Amino acid sequence: MSNRSLIDELTQALQCLPSVGPKSAQRMVYHLLDKNRNGALKLSDVLARAVTEIGHCQQCRTFTEEDLCSICSNQKRNDNGAICIVEMPVDVVAIEQTALFSGTYFVLMGHLSPLDGVGPEQLGLNLLEQQMQKGNINEVILATNPTVEGEATAYYIAEMARKYEIQVSRIAHGVPVGGELEFVDSTTLSHSFTGRSFL
Amino acid sequence: MSNRSLIDELTQALQCLPSVGPKSAQRMVYHLLDKNRNGALKLSDVLARAVTEIGHCQQCRTFTEEDLCSICSNQKRNDNGAICIVEMPVDVVAIEQTALFSGTYFVLMGHLSPLDGVGPEQLGLNLLEQQMQKGNINEVILATNPTVEGEATAYYIAEMARKYEIQVSRIAHGVPVGGELEFVDSTTLSHSFTGRSFL
Repeated sequence: MSNRSLIDELTQALQCLPSVGPKSAQRMVYHLLDKNRNGALKLSDVLARAVTEIGHCQQCRTFTEEDLCSICSNQKRNDNGAICIVEMPVDVVAIEQTALFSGTYFVLMGHLSPLDGVGPEQLGLNLLEQQMQKGNINEVILATNPTVEGEATAYYIAEMARKYEIQVSRIAHGVPVGGELEFVDSTTLSHSFTGRSFL
Repeated sequence: MSNRSLIDELTQALQCLPSVGPKSAQRMVYHLLDKNRNGALKLSDVLARAVTEIGHCQQCRTFTEEDLCSICSNQKRNDNGAICIVEMPVDVVAIEQTALFSGTYFVLMGHLSPLDGVGPEQLGLNLLEQQMQKGNINEVILATNPTVEGEATAYYIAEMARKYEIQVSRIAHGVPVGGELEFVDSTTLSHSFTGRSFL
């Protein structure tokens, strides 16, 4: 193979991307070299800038290159008084796409997991508590993932909110729209029963 | 969504990679920012270097950062006298992995396709002809893809080789090892019949 060094180096480096193995990395290398060198240069530049410039929002901890993210720096959304707790920045994107929520977010960047040494401090819950103390939050919406750790984290934050007499709610879990009952696991189904709404 | 600008820019830039769409690009962005910033920096650096430093081998036209690729600069392989014609550099990698061929390669970087304005010049066939004229080639092995364009290109090069009374061979096409006859298309099957070897 021509040029073991650099082509192999790139094939190796590309495997830092999720779900990219040696084969697809090789395909990418030859595709870029053959068809899209400008795209590769642009990617290289944006990658470097993103990694160095993007930090965490001082209020909600999501990814941003400024001190405050576009949502936290929006006064209208702060006045709304509702704060939605999610695990990852990508969850913010998902909820924003529904265009249903007009409050602010708090991104835990993970969930409580004592075995991995992830406690309240790692999730920045002290920062969240400070915001609760300020008293301009009137509802905490828990949108952590419906996993054991996610539920535990939600429970912990719910307790914290009650201390400050803030209303707490958990997003509904149930049969996904368009899903068919026969294919829904029993846990989800039981959730959708206990969480049924009366018409 | 926090930081429309830079995160979106990166999501856009990542889509220059083959079979990477908006969704998987977004996944890559958050994975890199959250879990592997060093990997991203390294990738950015290697990408830039590869795109700027990697050119074409002056003898076989494959990708290399030197004037001659590792194969062409190997005297033993030049002395072998056999030259294998392939369409893309990745084909060289594939054949090298068989460890069966000890001659040199010539990479066309495509195939004859007049409608797309790809003629003998674009494939560097004049360069190939010069090597034939030198008279140190005793066999031309045609390993272009078994497509209409690939066959046409192979035919063109075969004619060229005959002018210099160089032996020409075409790699065998037939039932892939491990493949089952019932699933093999008729064209391949007819190839494997005409190309049968007598025991």
